[in-house]
Amino acid sequence: MASSSLVKIPATLSNLLQLHLRRTSDDADATNLRIPTAASALRSNTPSFSPKEDISSFFSEIHGHGDWSTLLNPLHPWLRREIVKYGELAQATYDAFDSNPFSEFCGSCLYGRRRLLRKLGLARSGYTVSKYIYAMSVVELPMWLERSLHADAWSTDSNWMGYVAVSDDAESRRIGCRDIVVAWRGTVSTTEWIEDIKAKLVLLNVGSNGDVKVENGFLSVYTSKSELTRYNKTSASEQVMPELRRLVSHYQQQGEQVCLTITGHSLGGALALLNAYEAASAMPDLPVSVISFGAPRVGNDMFVERLGEMKVKVLRVVVKQDLVPKLPGILFNENLKRFEIVDRMLEHVYMHAGIELGLNAKASPFLKQDGIHVAGFHHLETYLHLVDGFQSSEMEFRSRARRDVALVNKTSGMLREELQIPPSWSQLANKGMLRNSFGRWVKPTREAEDIPSPYREVAAPQAAQLGLS
Amino acid sequence: MASSSLVKIPATLSNLLQLHLRRTSDDADATNLRIPTAASALRSNTPSFSPKEDISSFFSEIHGHGDWSTLLNPLHPWLRREIVKYGELAQATYDAFDSNPFSEFCGSCLYGRRRLLRKLGLARSGYTVSKYIYAMSVVELPMWLERSLHADAWSTDSNWMGYVAVSDDAESRRIGCRDIVVAWRGTVSTTEWIEDIKAKLVLLNVGSNGDVKVENGFLSVYTSKSELTRYNKTSASEQVMPELRRLVSHYQQQGEQVCLTITGHSLGGALALLNAYEAASAMPDLPVSVISFGAPRVGNDMFVERLGEMKVKVLRVVVKQDLVPKLPGILFNENLKRFEIVDRMLEHVYMHAGIELGLNAKASPFLKQDGIHVAGFHHLETYLHLVDGFQSSEMEFRSRARRDVALVNKTSGMLREELQIPPSWSQLANKGMLRNSFGRWVKPTREAEDIPSPYREVAAPQAAQLGLS
Repeated sequence: MASSSLVKIPATLSNLLQLHLRRTSDDADATNLRIPTAASALRSNTPSFSPKEDISSFFSEIHGHGDWSTLLNPLHPWLRREIVKYGELAQATYDAFDSNPFSEFCGSCLYGRRRLLRKLGLARSGYTVSKYIYAMSVVELPMWLERSLHADAWSTDSNWMGYVAVSDDAESRRIGCRDIVVAWRGTVSTTEWIEDIKAKLVLLNVGSNGDVKVENGFLSVYTSKSELTRYNKTSASEQVMPELRRLVSHYQQQGEQVCLTITGHSLGGALALLNAYEAASAMPDLPVSVISFGAPRVGNDMFVERLGEMKVKVLRVVVKQDLVPKLPGILFNENLKRFEIVDRMLEHVYMHAGIELGLNAKASPFLKQDGIHVAGFHHLETYLHLVDGFQSSEMEFRSRARRDVALVNKTSGMLREELQIPPSWSQLANKGMLRNSFGRWVKPTREAEDIPSPYREVAAPQAAQLGLS
Repeated sequence: MASSSLVKIPATLSNLLQLHLRRTSDDADATNLRIPTAASALRSNTPSFSPKEDISSFFSEIHGHGDWSTLLNPLHPWLRREIVKYGELAQATYDAFDSNPFSEFCGSCLYGRRRLLRKLGLARSGYTVSKYIYAMSVVELPMWLERSLHADAWSTDSNWMGYVAVSDDAESRRIGCRDIVVAWRGTVSTTEWIEDIKAKLVLLNVGSNGDVKVENGFLSVYTSKSELTRYNKTSASEQVMPELRRLVSHYQQQGEQVCLTITGHSLGGALALLNAYEAASAMPDLPVSVISFGAPRVGNDMFVERLGEMKVKVLRVVVKQDLVPKLPGILFNENLKRFEIVDRMLEHVYMHAGIELGLNAKASPFLKQDGIHVAGFHHLETYLHLVDGFQSSEMEFRSRARRDVALVNKTSGMLREELQIPPSWSQLANKGMLRNSFGRWVKPTREAEDIPSPYREVAAPQAAQLGLS
């Protein structure tokens, strides 16, 4: 008989997880794993949500007023939950992205703005989406644009690139601020574009102490527009900025404390930084913070310096094994300062902004430890899992971590095989095909509410006020 | 900007199909395709079923009484529909097979016997499933056995290998016979096993004119059993034969005309032939026919001769571009006869049985014509598409073919890209994972009716009579 392909599971791990896995005779030899004895993250009947606590008195610390200096090591539980919250709002831009080239809506959001968060199981998030953002790029950026093969494609130039959302009354009370969020999407084919990127710094601003420069490709996605397109007659920047001004002014007029939190993963983290730079320049008194995940470097030393001067607070969540935050500038970066290189040279060198929250993939007993998983270490779901389990750089994975571990494998195969979660399990039934009443398999038409429309986005401010009031 | 990956579509094809595809400037140069002007197979509002006609007067011809000599070229429409009907009953063994190694039921049928055909949209077929067949193999047959990685697997030795079904009263009247069908499953990883097979003829029977020999691996799947297993304390042969005897005797006692039609694709076609051999030996007066698709050779010249003596009628549907029917014996086969090799040598040579219905993949304007698609040409859905479009060896693809073309891409990418049917679209939503009330993604438990049970199969005869009467 053919030899079976048994998975070898350490007996102790198996017992602890209460999984029913096949045993092999060499169980006894297997390594004991540092699995949390509670393993609540694995129990199917443990709520994956934590209770929401009133953190309003803590508002300015959570939003980086003190550069998170006393909150990161060990990681304060309130801050941990907020980081996961923003990360899930960023993850929504992936989960709702139509990347099927056979769809006429490839490159758009699968759902209309009003039901985006509900469709993704984020109804409890306490946020309401007020506007979608579309982007194009006149600079060639490898692999970033998803394009429909369909002749009647909704767009051939633009991609849905993120959204603006606002905290509702209850969430605003809980966190102590009317929180305006911008979530920027990264790219689906993450590793390809970042490895191929031809990093080139271009002038953003002439500063008093030196020129502010940022990476050409990132800036192009943020600022490109063309009259020939349907969704980018205005650039991403020109779409997001008026909406932010409108919302800030609306809530400030009502005497509310307003803050802006910009989040994004990978390329989305780079766009978040550019967006924060522009928003802080335009609205100097607004508290602006960025929570980015696996973001690359974006600009030079003067860019970072200006962000600091404008009090933009940047928390960069970085997995040690992820390559993307090492790019661009894997050779020439902020570490050069150690060698006392002439200051002028730094103008041409990429620098990271803000404070780093460093995570180690080896800390999680749920993740594969052997082999190299370049894409897997970069996935946002891997990041969120590691944030959820992080206590401090010296301590083990948090035994009371509750976030659903299965989510890690949504679009990767990073979970250890003995957990029996299928790799890359996120997929549509029959790739979206449905059997109609004539017995034929057809591609269904989208519901009207979910069909992208350039008009709808122009009309957003009016519509949004109804939704928010 | 990045150059777009446009699909180039001939303008005429695009017009004819009434598809909305993006045009390119070199459309004019593109080859005109012989697409059926009606193209009813593509219209989403054309029923994919043909009306059922009374073919009872034609019963013995349809079932091969005259070796289908006047029915194949051109192909008689009534015979075409019957071939497709049996092919779809064989396709059901693939569509309902659980091949997910993360499932504890990997290798079983996804559905209980009573609702198998309904679940697959074959409720109209006019057949009722009376028994499931399980098989194992004591001979190593590459890649054929699907095995669960789960510790509590339903079985680690056996696979669901097919089923016995009986035509209901209406269908029996329509076709002129109480039709007992056995449908045998092939392997999911089709090409691997057949290329790796170490073909070895073994003795099946000592005949008066010479020894009857068949391929060792196929025979092993048909006859292997072990007391240590749950589902193969009896072999596939020992499961199917008593059920056939029971059904034949049951309906003959009621004075009905009974026939046996055995179908299968690939390895399933080989098992169909072994099953037909055994059934014809055991019940000499029963009309036995085999409709196989893409089946390999099974035995030597005496095996073929004995089948003929027992009046087993074999219709082998073969796609010219498919490699599997050329195996085993790609060098030494029935063509040797042309060279007047000494008779004794034929005992060691593989021979095809019965009549061939030859199909040419190039005849279909819907299929990819460039490149080599070894697996795609072998898929049963490709076969059924080509049967549906076949008129004669000289004529073009049938313009009134109605079978849903999208089915071809169920598990392959054989359809031309401009048809915009996603390749291999048959998949479960989220690989079967569901979000439970605690917000966690879990593998759902099977409904009780769909959980395999060795007891249920032993008890089948009693249960089946209730279902059939």
